[in-house]
Amino acid sequence: MKTATFYHAGCPVCVSAEQDLLNVIDHTTTKIEIVDLGEQRNKIEEAEKLGVQSVPALVLDNSNVLHINFGASLEDVKG
Amino acid sequence: MKTATFYHAGCPVCVSAEQDLLNVIDHTTTKIEIVDLGEQRNKIEEAEKLGVQSVPALVLDNSNVLHINFGASLEDVKG
Repeated sequence: MKTATFYHAGCPVCVSAEQDLLNVIDHTTTKIEIVDLGEQRNKIEEAEKLGVQSVPALVLDNSNVLHINFGASLEDVKG
Repeated sequence: MKTATFYHAGCPVCVSAEQDLLNVIDHTTTKIEIVDLGEQRNKIEEAEKLGVQSVPALVLDNSNVLHINFGASLEDVKG
């Protein structure tokens, strides 16, 4: 089972991207974890270490980070 | 069968994102078409009409456009 983590911040763009990705991803081979950095602020540092520069972003288990849709920068999320 | 179109321009970032998406997408429910705008320049206008502002981008059949990884703008691709 592959794993992927979707980091978002609760914004409408994030939620829309989340639904779109959940719709096309193969859930029989990939387990998706959803992290709302607006609520789980203690995960912001973890996200940064993984290479997340903006949200929404999908971190794959090959360490690649797909930043999606020119969303909010982590600096904005830290606010 | 859902359809999705992945627009790219042959750059390393594009190719990496393409492989990552192909790896996680459910190919039993979603058919992916790959369009290289560097080679298929006649498709650039179509991409713009669909709302593609930069590549790589994934256009879903609900008309949503997921722009990925802060890639090249279409203005750059037109060059």
